[in-house]
Amino acid sequence: MMPFDIGAIADAGLQQQLTAKIDAKTKPPGSLGQLESIAIQLGLIQGSSTPRIVAPHLLVFAADHGITAEGVSAYPQEVTWQMVMNYLARGAAVNVFASAAGLTLKVVDAGVSHAFDPHPDLVDRKIAAGTRNFAHEAAMSMAQAEQAIDAGATLTRELARSGTNAIAFGEMGIGNTTAASALMAHLTGLPLGVCIGRGTGVDDHGLARKHTVIEAALALHVGARHPLDALAALGGFEIAMISGAMLAAAEARMVILVDGFIVGSALLVAQALAPNVLDYCIFAHTSDEHGHAAMLGHFKAKPLLDLGLRLGEGTGAALAFPLVKAAAGFLESMASFSQAGVAGRM
Amino acid sequence: MMPFDIGAIADAGLQQQLTAKIDAKTKPPGSLGQLESIAIQLGLIQGSSTPRIVAPHLLVFAADHGITAEGVSAYPQEVTWQMVMNYLARGAAVNVFASAAGLTLKVVDAGVSHAFDPHPDLVDRKIAAGTRNFAHEAAMSMAQAEQAIDAGATLTRELARSGTNAIAFGEMGIGNTTAASALMAHLTGLPLGVCIGRGTGVDDHGLARKHTVIEAALALHVGARHPLDALAALGGFEIAMISGAMLAAAEARMVILVDGFIVGSALLVAQALAPNVLDYCIFAHTSDEHGHAAMLGHFKAKPLLDLGLRLGEGTGAALAFPLVKAAAGFLESMASFSQAGVAGRM
Repeated sequence: MMPFDIGAIADAGLQQQLTAKIDAKTKPPGSLGQLESIAIQLGLIQGSSTPRIVAPHLLVFAADHGITAEGVSAYPQEVTWQMVMNYLARGAAVNVFASAAGLTLKVVDAGVSHAFDPHPDLVDRKIAAGTRNFAHEAAMSMAQAEQAIDAGATLTRELARSGTNAIAFGEMGIGNTTAASALMAHLTGLPLGVCIGRGTGVDDHGLARKHTVIEAALALHVGARHPLDALAALGGFEIAMISGAMLAAAEARMVILVDGFIVGSALLVAQALAPNVLDYCIFAHTSDEHGHAAMLGHFKAKPLLDLGLRLGEGTGAALAFPLVKAAAGFLESMASFSQAGVAGRM
Repeated sequence: MMPFDIGAIADAGLQQQLTAKIDAKTKPPGSLGQLESIAIQLGLIQGSSTPRIVAPHLLVFAADHGITAEGVSAYPQEVTWQMVMNYLARGAAVNVFASAAGLTLKVVDAGVSHAFDPHPDLVDRKIAAGTRNFAHEAAMSMAQAEQAIDAGATLTRELARSGTNAIAFGEMGIGNTTAASALMAHLTGLPLGVCIGRGTGVDDHGLARKHTVIEAALALHVGARHPLDALAALGGFEIAMISGAMLAAAEARMVILVDGFIVGSALLVAQALAPNVLDYCIFAHTSDEHGHAAMLGHFKAKPLLDLGLRLGEGTGAALAFPLVKAAAGFLESMASFSQAGVAGRM
């Protein structure tokens, strides 16, 4: 794997310029709250006082998980490929929200246990037909982990070359909250109880089972100290591919819109490999998945939405995207006090 | 003033039908969180299992306030008409956000101290060139209060006849957080300190002055027990007109999108006149204006956004509107498990 060259976005001069531009707009200083911080972040990411969102995409990475054999999910594994078909037929929540938000949606088969027919919205990057069961062995080989990261990075670079400068990330994979919880506990050192939740809706018995399974797996893979080893041991192909796509996005100075718990777990891996990736991230929402709040705390993130969502797919990212556009929009289109002939403070 | 005939939206059969429809969608039950509650509310408001948002409008009501003579605002009074001109020139934040959200924006001159030339986006319903100073006398006569409520109600009914079924409310009026705080303290009985804030950004001295002015005014107008008396004593023309427009909107079973603190004060009046009006309200955001959180608590409201906004104009409502559309959108467009051929829970 090639290392990623990700710079911090801090630029005191540009930040001052952006702040002055915002404060000259016809509104009391600071009155657009968090949208002002987002506008400044967009400017710093793009190295410009006139940041613009161009050809934004939402990439939904899908993969299957060997850990489902342990009975950790409320839904059978075939729901992964069935939901991919649903995305391609534009029948899922993420289709409705991405379309309304002006996000071009592509589905990436990172490792679904199903042979799909070609489809214009489906990108085939299948590493294998699902990971192995990390209760017993590493979910993937190191070669597979690196292949997935490279595939994600290549996807992002292709989008960057075609002009896209903002990517929202989503995912689908029955069993993937289990992988994400395991990665979170392993990478952050937080107690497993903080990192685990009901996913798509397991009952108390399922939750206890999930806890037991992950606890044993963490003991089995305790030696996987390097982030890539951890990813290979406990991750998923969609998670690995998202990590790589995020790292390449930051390298290309693109805006990264982070969805919920699973996408956050991919960011944990990316952050462990290149901490500056966080500078490029806008956090879409606080999900209802137990563990996400602590994960956001780890990132020191202040998400845009808190709607009790726990669907994944990138739905939170799509729902938050209009706010990101609004931040760019007010910076670009609002009149200044002098332009509008409005009096300032007394 | 004609009484408003506003029914509750509760309908157990329809609610069950909507819930079943939502639970059949390709997602874990409840996983769209607050959007599911909004979808149900939309259905109950429209009395339909297929609610749709049609021709949504954002009405920005503007007026001046005699209380500004007491030095309660950080900006001079002429900013009210100057900002109206800014809205008409499409240079303000609310223009940017309403346009992005697909809201038709109209500005209503409810009582601005300025003679405007006619403009296609300006609706002239001027009651007078600003209210009187409620530190010394009632802000308006009872006849003016009723005239304002009727004017707002008539505007809403005209929109309803032309097919609009959702209205977002915004406002502009230098000094109007002072009127709103006074109304809130008077109508809710909450301590004034809970109801008062910095508005567009007064300093500590200005805040203390605002407190003193309102405290004295509350004592002066303590006898104004009926909500209409309170409105006339302490309100503003834009506040009164919004109250009337909201009441007529609920009567016509329209969706009401409530912006921030000032629009909330108009809802306090409307609620005091017809409590069922709350059934039709979607609360856009928790603003940064001190007092708004307690006001939302009074309404038992759970707003969609919490972005630290304190601009008014309807900006919070415009920013939240895509989420309302998303709620209607998933209910209308998402596939069910059986339509999509996706397996359900195990």
